[in-house]
Order: sequence, then structure tokens, then C-alpha cells
Amino acid sequence: MLDLTIENSQLNQRLVESGDWNIVETEFDSTQLHHQETVFTLSNGYLGTRGTFEEGYPQDCPATLIHGVYDDVAIATTELVNCPNWLPLTIKVAGERFRMDCGEILSYERRLDLRLGIVSRDVRWRSPAGHTLEFHFERFASLANQHFLATRCQITSVDFEGEVEVEVGFHPEPHTQGVKHWQTLKQGGLDNTIWLHSKTLHSAIELGMAAKLVVEAEETTTVHVHQLEQHSPTLITKLAVIPDKTITLEKIVTVYTSREISTPAEAAIIRLVTAPSYSTLLAAHIAAWDQVWQESDIVIEGDRLAQLSVRYNLFQILAVAPRHDDRVSIPPKTLSGFAYSGHIFWDTEIFILPLLIHTQPALARNLLNYRYHTLPGARRKAQEMGYRGAFYAWESASTGDEVTPRWVPTPNGEQVRIWCGDIEVHINTDVAYGAWQYWQTTGDDQWMRDYGAEMILDTAVFWESRVEWNQKRHSYDIRDVIGPDENHDRIDNNAFTNLFIQWHLQTALTLWDWLVKSYPDTAAQLAEKLDLQPEQRQLWAKIAKHIYINQDLETGLIEQFEGFYNLEYVNLADYEPRTKSMQGLLGVEATSQKQILKQPDVLMLMYLLRDRFDRQTLQTNWDYYNPRTDHTYGSSLGPAIHAILACDLNQSAEAYTHFIRAAMVDLADVRRNAHEGIHAASAGGVWQAVIFGFGGVRMTQFGPIACPNLPANWTRLQFKLKWRNQTYEFDLMK
Amino acid sequence: MLDLTIENSQLNQRLVESGDWNIVETEFDSTQLHHQETVFTLSNGYLGTRGTFEEGYPQDCPATLIHGVYDDVAIATTELVNCPNWLPLTIKVAGERFRMDCGEILSYERRLDLRLGIVSRDVRWRSPAGHTLEFHFERFASLANQHFLATRCQITSVDFEGEVEVEVGFHPEPHTQGVKHWQTLKQGGLDNTIWLHSKTLHSAIELGMAAKLVVEAEETTTVHVHQLEQHSPTLITKLAVIPDKTITLEKIVTVYTSREISTPAEAAIIRLVTAPSYSTLLAAHIAAWDQVWQESDIVIEGDRLAQLSVRYNLFQILAVAPRHDDRVSIPPKTLSGFAYSGHIFWDTEIFILPLLIHTQPALARNLLNYRYHTLPGARRKAQEMGYRGAFYAWESASTGDEVTPRWVPTPNGEQVRIWCGDIEVHINTDVAYGAWQYWQTTGDDQWMRDYGAEMILDTAVFWESRVEWNQKRHSYDIRDVIGPDENHDRIDNNAFTNLFIQWHLQTALTLWDWLVKSYPDTAAQLAEKLDLQPEQRQLWAKIAKHIYINQDLETGLIEQFEGFYNLEYVNLADYEPRTKSMQGLLGVEATSQKQILKQPDVLMLMYLLRDRFDRQTLQTNWDYYNPRTDHTYGSSLGPAIHAILACDLNQSAEAYTHFIRAAMVDLADVRRNAHEGIHAASAGGVWQAVIFGFGGVRMTQFGPIACPNLPANWTRLQFKLKWRNQTYEFDLMK
Repeated sequence: MLDLTIENSQLNQRLVESGDWNIVETEFDSTQLHHQETVFTLSNGYLGTRGTFEEGYPQDCPATLIHGVYDDVAIATTELVNCPNWLPLTIKVAGERFRMDCGEILSYERRLDLRLGIVSRDVRWRSPAGHTLEFHFERFASLANQHFLATRCQITSVDFEGEVEVEVGFHPEPHTQGVKHWQTLKQGGLDNTIWLHSKTLHSAIELGMAAKLVVEAEETTTVHVHQLEQHSPTLITKLAVIPDKTITLEKIVTVYTSREISTPAEAAIIRLVTAPSYSTLLAAHIAAWDQVWQESDIVIEGDRLAQLSVRYNLFQILAVAPRHDDRVSIPPKTLSGFAYSGHIFWDTEIFILPLLIHTQPALARNLLNYRYHTLPGARRKAQEMGYRGAFYAWESASTGDEVTPRWVPTPNGEQVRIWCGDIEVHINTDVAYGAWQYWQTTGDDQWMRDYGAEMILDTAVFWESRVEWNQKRHSYDIRDVIGPDENHDRIDNNAFTNLFIQWHLQTALTLWDWLVKSYPDTAAQLAEKLDLQPEQRQLWAKIAKHIYINQDLETGLIEQFEGFYNLEYVNLADYEPRTKSMQGLLGVEATSQKQILKQPDVLMLMYLLRDRFDRQTLQTNWDYYNPRTDHTYGSSLGPAIHAILACDLNQSAEAYTHFIRAAMVDLADVRRNAHEGIHAASAGGVWQAVIFGFGGVRMTQFGPIACPNLPANWTRLQFKLKWRNQTYEFDLMK
Repeated sequence: MLDLTIENSQLNQRLVESGDWNIVETEFDSTQLHHQETVFTLSNGYLGTRGTFEEGYPQDCPATLIHGVYDDVAIATTELVNCPNWLPLTIKVAGERFRMDCGEILSYERRLDLRLGIVSRDVRWRSPAGHTLEFHFERFASLANQHFLATRCQITSVDFEGEVEVEVGFHPEPHTQGVKHWQTLKQGGLDNTIWLHSKTLHSAIELGMAAKLVVEAEETTTVHVHQLEQHSPTLITKLAVIPDKTITLEKIVTVYTSREISTPAEAAIIRLVTAPSYSTLLAAHIAAWDQVWQESDIVIEGDRLAQLSVRYNLFQILAVAPRHDDRVSIPPKTLSGFAYSGHIFWDTEIFILPLLIHTQPALARNLLNYRYHTLPGARRKAQEMGYRGAFYAWESASTGDEVTPRWVPTPNGEQVRIWCGDIEVHINTDVAYGAWQYWQTTGDDQWMRDYGAEMILDTAVFWESRVEWNQKRHSYDIRDVIGPDENHDRIDNNAFTNLFIQWHLQTALTLWDWLVKSYPDTAAQLAEKLDLQPEQRQLWAKIAKHIYINQDLETGLIEQFEGFYNLEYVNLADYEPRTKSMQGLLGVEATSQKQILKQPDVLMLMYLLRDRFDRQTLQTNWDYYNPRTDHTYGSSLGPAIHAILACDLNQSAEAYTHFIRAAMVDLADVRRNAHEGIHAASAGGVWQAVIFGFGGVRMTQFGPIACPNLPANWTRLQFKLKWRNQTYEFDLMK
């Protein structure tokens, strides 16, 4: 059981109330090891740590990922590297090492308290030699001070009297999916403190980590073995254990990188040795989470699964959003796994951002500033490809230069060309859309003046140079692109892309007018910097007006791209049940020749530009594209969007199916890939599904207004939204 | 005035009593700058800091020397290097920098409190702009924790209201007499902490230094400027000053080297940030000094000059003796100056050691262990020169290998061959003598078994191979040597050397008997290790018996070496007054042809082997050699010895003259070279002069016994001696 000994009656009070706040695993199943490691990930806006065990487990997959700590790698160009593991804490009972695969697990419970941001574990264990002890572990990554990590271990003997040895340390040079990225510059120890100073091999990012061990026990012999030959520094303590007496060990860890401070090792050491107690750190951490939940919590009554899973999804986004750094963003697997190399995709602006814009605008601003700071990379990309303005990277890392792998080896050794970095051009408008949404919602004019305008305008400039005038049909074409539905690449005139660009250019014009009127000086400076000429305004308007779109004037059906209607129709139901994506089943080439969508494309547009399409048009396109979409194993970005649109169409049962598919994607491992890390875009989509789908919230010029479509069993839905410096509390009941 | 705000009434009590404990400088005389820097040196058994001003002064000569921190250098092979200066603390009053050469010094007092180990300074200063302020500085190098240094500055405005800016930092890469020895590996700062991590260029000794600034003032703006471009880390604080209000600033510094810990920078940082307050550190420091004085103080009544100067000499030895390191020893200039490159000479064993053997035996043991640890170097030296056993270096550093410069350039560019390293062989017996004295006095059998015996025996083995059998006169000769009187080099059969070796071999035989009887196993192991054969015993006895000595059987006069009597007699009085040594006046070559002694040689022997010569023999030799010795500018090692022998001859007036010459050598700059550093051997000799000369102490088989010869004005002499685990208190009165 969770046993927080915090001397704060208010906190204890909260623990009692915390019914729907706990993800609880009551049995250990080693076949679910990597999945549960993802589920029990903890992050704090700076660092993420997968839920591996302190004592290790065969084939476990520990990961400590820090925002912005990238290093060079083959194929992916750069990847977020697995940082030194701060968790190691091993226990030997009469010489036998405690591990979940040895001896006998008499009882087990692991718990993630979403409200408090704590992972804990209770194990009653019988050693191979027959000694029975109870272990309580708990850990947190401080949300109050991002450089502090802590783990506590309580040992209670049931029947054993003798010596328990506890060893704590680091794992200093973990590989990242087999690739070595770290060199240890220095490590050492003094008294009850050990430290590590490492550097990435290519990007030369330095990392400092320090740890101390605090033991609360009567009879203790602490032997400080700081550095064994060929080993990393370690602290060892020997404890005399007797039945029914609890010994508490606290491992406090600090971590800094040269991204924050020029001397990260020294900073880690100084902060560590002057650190407050575990209890004090924990109290501050809990208070910080309390603050976050005050703004961002969603209360659902009548559906505990929805309640818990929604909170879980919010938790993972709120935990990982960078809090004190606006030069990093949220990778698609948060900081919980290695997939996608920690690169930044449109997932952030389109899926993750809305939760933050509407409940934690300061964090949303950090994410958008990342795009501002990577504008130079986007300009380099445009220039290298022969275009004007800024062309954001489809996959972005530290500098904003394109880092999408161009060629990827398949398991059979072939090299497959990946075109996303070259032609998945909608990213440019995704970023502009995110910036616009932030401004519209927060009214943060200063930010738009200083950061947002440059992003929206310079990406608009790009479109000027990217579109092609089709003299034959008097239209602007955008050829050779990939839309959101990546089952079809190198296509022409993707409706999503074209209409989203139309919106972008129109929005840029509106923004330009506002800027000239409100901040003429800035407007003049920006016009000079971006080489904006008055005639461009006409050009932008003309492109927006004449951009090509194949929409049936009667039904309103929009062709996803030129030639989509000519592709083969497939009845996806014929392939059910399956455990793979359609593309996985049929192959890349064959799937591209069929009407099979990886994720919503025209429908995605209809969600993003919700006000521009009436219900009838939505219905028509829904009826056409919905059955053609691979909902189960296509993109995990789809279900939440389908849930929202289904709500708009009053199909709340179908909406709920999509919603649950998104909400449980990690908890229930719906797509069998949760071991790779948390589905961040899906998690962000879940918030949108609840607020904009079931909550039916629409943003108006008077603020957010709700027209709820609650699922059958939901009796109440409560949440808060921020709109232009005001908080709107929603309490929707059936 | 010294204003120690320690909440300890006992300490305050002591301050009141501390009449004869203070070296006070009441006027600042810039012509005495370097001399007074030496006088106000503070050491703590680990590190020494010359008494330079915190704020600097034109042409000042700051030095921070740490035992054992040597680095390669031309000519001297290796030298004790000037370590990063921890003192810098500069004050700007309304933008004008406080320095003793600017503005106007309205009053000045500097004080070294020998009892407390504190240097303090009070300056009433009028700035060039006419603002008057009082500054009180104090500093100490903690004797309680050798890695802590601290300085406190109190600023009181008389008439100034405005801003005072205080900047503290390090001087990270000071040269050592023009030679660069340091590279800065890293430096930085965090909050009110700065640090430095350096490495010597050749010996790769790493040094970590950290500092923090604590300000006690009501209205303070502390700006932490940690690292200016191209500058070392600095902490700056700006203080609002008003008349009659005192602001206190404390700079706490920690320093470690890789000689103590593999990670000195981190150790310095950790110890610094967890450091207690200045007052607490100071209290521990004072308590440590109190402990030392309990054992080692000498009280002289009736002669305040003698009292104060004796304490000053004791203070400098007690302060510099390594407390936690037995692989270093005390250089001839302590840690207060660069002369002699910080090499270790016989000065330690013969002059400095007795004070420690008889009052601080644990420190004496550290010094002797240095010789034990450098035995491998002594063996290398013997082997390289074609001898057996161990031949200690005349000048020794880290390894015990000979580091006496062989060729030294003279001012006119000639190269002069220095023979001491090759042939000043008495060093070998000096070390054995020190080890023997330690054992005889302490009765530390275990040490003699484990350390001393090997030193005494292996150096005895050397003599076997060094002596030459003279078939003509049936004697053992020792040719081509230098005795203590270095005015005469490459001489044959130096009486001091020969008779001291006789003692050595006889002592080795006695020791060998004892070892075989008391520790047969050790004796067997040592015999094997040193390849000692039974027949060597006969050889040692034979050498001792037949060693050549030219002593007049009637008068007892001993010829200093073969041919001394044939040298030209010089009436030294003819050259008075002079300000140079006779060698300096006449030249090296000419002096060597005359009967001019740099220091006692035959007489030195008569002091060291006091029991072997009767008073008549002493008188004869005294009468002959005393007038032939350059007492004023010859070796500073001489006067104390002459003082003792004069006491033995009841010539207490002459004894006092010699004594004062030794006791005041640094305080009054008797030899005009005090700027080069403290005369450590002289200081040790002063203790011997008081105890063995004026106190008339002789060591008997029943312990020390005093037959005092107090100077005319001394009414009382009190001291303690340790003998075989007992403390003997002496209270000698006229």
C-alpha cells in the first residue's frame, strides 16, 4: 500500500479522496514487462524515466531521456539519447540478491498515483533461502525542481534476522537501442555522495548526475565504496535487520546538463549536498502537481475507466511538457521510449498543444517558441530545396534542420526511400495553425508580435514558392506531397494540404493587417527581415482563392487527392480480426494503390477547420472516408479525431469506441506497441475528444461554449478552460 | 583591533591574557613589503599562505604553497609550485579601489596572533575622493580542518554614504618565480559559490579550490558574476554603506589536491557548500591551536623579546608540520617562500625534528615516514652511483630521487658545479640520527620495527660501500665529501662525517641486536630484503673502529678535514661590519682556501654527539673553530647550535647573542633574506637552544633532566617535554 509519511494533514486528506487517481498493477506478468515499463513512466517537464525496476530485471529496458539531449546517429541523423540511469538500487538479503525473477513473489502491487506523480511498488518476497521480507519502493521526478529525482525503499523483515546490503549507483553509459552515445569524463564519490560527469560522443552535451543515500535505521554500517575498479561509483550500506522493524533508505539524485548550465557536474553536486530531505522534496513535488491539476483536471462521473484513462493521458502530457526550456518540444513517444528517435513532429502542434493552450498556456508557449527558435533550420531547409521563406522539418530536433531519415533499411535488407522530409509539406501550416490557436485562445498579443507573426508569415512565404500555377485549369496546384494519410505518398493536390494552406494564407493576411495596425514598427522590421513586399498580399489572396480542390458541388464530397477515386476500394471488414495495420498486411506498394487510409485526411481537415464545413458536408465525407480508414492499426492519431467528428454527427456510441481506443492505447496496449513508449499525440487527442467531442466545446468570439454530447453512461463532466486570461469552469451534466 | 565575535567566554578570556602572543606591525612600510609578507605567513600543516594583502599591492609576492605539490622545472628538477591564490578580495568605494598605495592610510595595524593562528589588519583609509572608512581584515588557515581557509572583512564607514562593491575570487594560474606550472581544467560558479579545477603541467597534480562569499548586511545586492570572459570566476556584491554601521563579509575557501583525493574539485565544492559558518570554523581552528600550545608552548619570564620571538619560531614550525600526510616533509623555507624550491634537506631531521619529537611526536613520525617512503629513491641514488644500500638525496622531493641542481648559472653567466647531491654524504646519517632520536625519546618500538630499522640499516649498508680502506695507515677513509661547513667542498675525511658515520654504524649494530632479540621475524625479513649477512656486522664494527680521525691526543682538537690546518687563517673581525657572507665577499674559490666556516662542523658534531665529548675537548674545539665561523651571514643553521654549546661552556652572554641572532632571523630580518621565506631550521634550532641550551636539558636513561643556564634577565622558563609516553613539565627559575 502507498504509505506516504508526509507530515501534512492536508496531503493525507487528499490521499483518502484519491479514488480515481491510481493506475494499479496487482500482479507481475513478465510478458508485459516492457509494456508496463512504458505505463509507469514518470516525467517532470525535463526528464522522463521508464518504469523499470530499481533492482533491474532480465531484458528490462530502462530509459532516462532528457529534453534536448540529442546525439548523432546513423539513419535518423540525431536521436534523443538514453541518459545515465539514476535508478539502480539493489538489495541483498543474506547475500542473495532481490529480484522479481528470483525467489518467490508472495504479493505484489505497483501503483502510479496520477495526482501525486508517484510510482510505488509493494513486494512481499521470499528469498531462495526462505527469508521473507516486504519491500516498499516509491519514486518521483520532482515537478517542483526539475533537477531532483528521488527513490525511497522501505524494507520490513517478516522472519529474517541478519544482514541486508543495499547498493545504490548509476548506470553511466547506457546504450540507445544498441548505439553508444556517452563517454564518462569523470566519476567519483565522497562520504555519502557519488557523482558522474559524462559527455555525448558527438553533440558534446555534458551531463552531471549526483546521488546520495540516506538511511534511517538504528543499527547501520554504511560503507561508502565510491569507485570500484572498472565500475561506476557506488554507495553500499549494510543493515542489521530484525523482524517487524522497518528500515528506510532514500536515494536523492540530481541531474543537470550543459544545456542548462556550463558546469553540470558541479551543479548536480552542489544541489545534491544542499538538498532538503526526501519528505520536503516530496511535499514540494506534490504541491506542484496539485497546482497543475487545479487547472487541467477533467472529472468524469459514471465511467471510472474513462475517468482514470483520461487522467492518465493528461498526466503523461502534463508531466512531459517542458516547463523551463523553450528550445525543446514533446516527442511522439514523450520521454518514455526510443521510437521516432525523439524527433519532433506535427503531433505536438496539432494533437498535444490544445490541452496546453487551454489549460497551461505558459507550457504551450514553450512548445511554440521551440518552433520559433528552429526557424533558422526551417529557412535552411527551404533554401536548400530552392524555395523561399521557411519550410519546417517534418522531423525536427535541436536545430530545426530536417532529420527525417531519407533511406531506411527494411528487415530484408532493402533500402526504402522515405519522402516525408521532402514533401509532407503540411507541417508548415500545422505549426502556423498551432501559433494561431495559441494567440486566438490566450490573446497574447506580445507573443504574436515577437514570435508568432514571424513563424506564420515566413511559412506563408514558403507556400508562394511551393505552389504551381496550372494554366490549363486556372488553379494553383501543390504537387508531389504526402498528406496526413501516409498510406499514399507522392500525390498531387492533397485536399487537406491545399485547403489548410488556403487557411494559412488567408490567416497570414489577417495577421499582417493586425500587425501593421497594432505594431507598425514591428511590422516594418519584419517586412524587411522577411523581404515582404506589398504585392505579395495580392499573391497570397490569389493563391488562396484559386488553390485546386476537387469537391463535388452537390454532395460536398472532397477527393482526398487527385486520383484517389480511381484507387481500388477495399472492404476492411473482410480483414478482421487482425493484429497488424492494413499496410503491414498488404505491403506499402499495394496499400498505396487502394482506398485505405492510415488516418483521417479530409476528415482531419474538417476537424481542424471545423467552422468551414457544415454538418451535411461532414456527414458526406464521414460516410465516405470513415469506412476506408484503418482505425485499429492505422495511425494512433486517428481515433480521437474520429471520436470528435462522430460527436459532431451525434454518433456518440461510435464516438465512444474511437475514444476508448485512443484513451486506452497505452494502458491496455490496444495497438501492441505500447512498449515503444507512450502515444503522446493520442493522449493529446483524448483531451480534445473529451472537450471538443463529448463536451462539445466550440470557441466563439465570446469564449468557449459547450454543446455536450456525453456518452450514455457519463453523468457528469467537469473541466476548466482558459480563454484570454479568464478561466471558464464547465460542469456538464446529463 | 582584533574583534573575535565568538560566543565562548573562555575564548574571550584568553584574548585578554594574550599579552606575549602578538606580532604587531603598527606602521606600513612598503620597503619592508616582502619581508613582512614572510613574517605574516600562515600555515596549517597542509598549506602555507604568505602575508600578502587580500586586495593586492604593486610588486607583492603572494604565495600559496601546498606540501607535496611539486612540478618539473629546469635546473632544480622539481619545485614546490605556487598554487592558486585564494586570498583575492577587492573593495571599491564609490568606484575607487581600496589599496594601501592609494588614498591615505590614516591608521594601520597588522597583527599575527600566535596563540589563535590568526592574521588581522586594521586600516583607517581615506579614499582619493576623500571618503573615510575603516577596514578590518582577518584570516586563518584552519588547523582543525586543513582544507578550509577563511578570510573576513569588516567595513565601517566613517563619513561615506553610498555604494561599496566587494569582489572575491582566485588567482588561478600564478607563476612560480616566473615559471608557469598550472593549467586550468575548469572553472565556474553557481549561486554564491565559485570553483576552480587546475592541474600542474608536468606532474599532473590536480587541484580543486572553491569559495563562497557570505555577507552580513541589511541592504545588499549580491550580483554573482561567476565567469567573466577570459577571467576566472568571481563573486561580486554591492553594499549600501552608511556611516557607523559595520558590514561583515566572509570568504570561505576549500582546497584539495589529487594527492589526497582523486576528485579534488568536487571535494572542494562539496565541503564548501556544506561548510559551517566562519565563526564555527574559527572556533574549531582556535581549539586546535590551543591543543597544540598545550604541549609545545614555552613560557619565558623576564624577557618579552625572547618570549615573543621563541613563540614565533615555534608557531611557524608547528603550523607547517604536515599533520595528515606522511609522504611530505618541511622545506627549509617552510611553505612561506620559493627559495630552495621546496626541496627537503637535513634541516628537517637535525634542526626541526627535535621540537616535534619532544612535544608533538605524531608530527615527528610523519616527517620520518617521509624518509621511509622515499627509501626507493635513496636506493636508486646509491645504485646509480655504484654503491650498495640507500643513499638519501641531499635535496629530496616527492620520490626521494636526488634533485640537487648539478649546474647552476651565476649572474655573470658561468655554470657552477654543485657537488652537494653527489658528496654531501652526511645526509644519510642525519636521517638515521633523526629516526634514532625519535625512537629513543618516544619508545615507539613498533615504528622502529616497521619503519625506522630499515632506514637506519640500509643507510648503514651504504657506508660499507662508500668507505675506502687505507692500507698505508690502516684506516677507513671517506674521501671527496662536503661536511656541514659548505665553504669547503670535495674534501677528504671530514671529521663530522667520519665520526657521525662511526656513530651510525655503532647504532646500527645496537639496533640490529635489539631487532633480532625483540622481533626475530621482522629481523629475518629485513635481513633478506636488505641482503644483510652476519659478516657485515664485523665489517661495520671494523669500520667504526678504524675510521680516520685527526684528533690531537693531548688537546682533543679535531681537524675539520684533512688539510684544514694548512689553509690560511683569517681574522673575521677585520671584515666587520659587513652585510654579506664571507664567501659572498671573497668568492667561492678564495673562501675554500681559508679557515672560514660557513657554519659549525666539528662543533656541530659535538652538539649532536654531546655525550661523547667532555667539556675540555669542547672548549678546545670551540676556542679554535668559533672565531673561524661566519656567524652573521654564514649559514642560518649555525647560531642556535653555537648558543647551545656556549651554554655548555657557561658562556651565557655569548649564548644569548647567538640565540637572539637565530630567534630574530625572520622577525628582525637579521640576514636580510627573510623576504625569501621563514628560516625553518633556525626556528627549530631556537627551540633546541632554549631547551638544550638555556634549559640545559640532557636526555638520560631516566628521562630528561635539566641543568639550566638561563640568560641573565630570564626569571623563569617553563616548557613540557614528552618522553616515552610521559609528559615532563619543567618550571625553571633563577
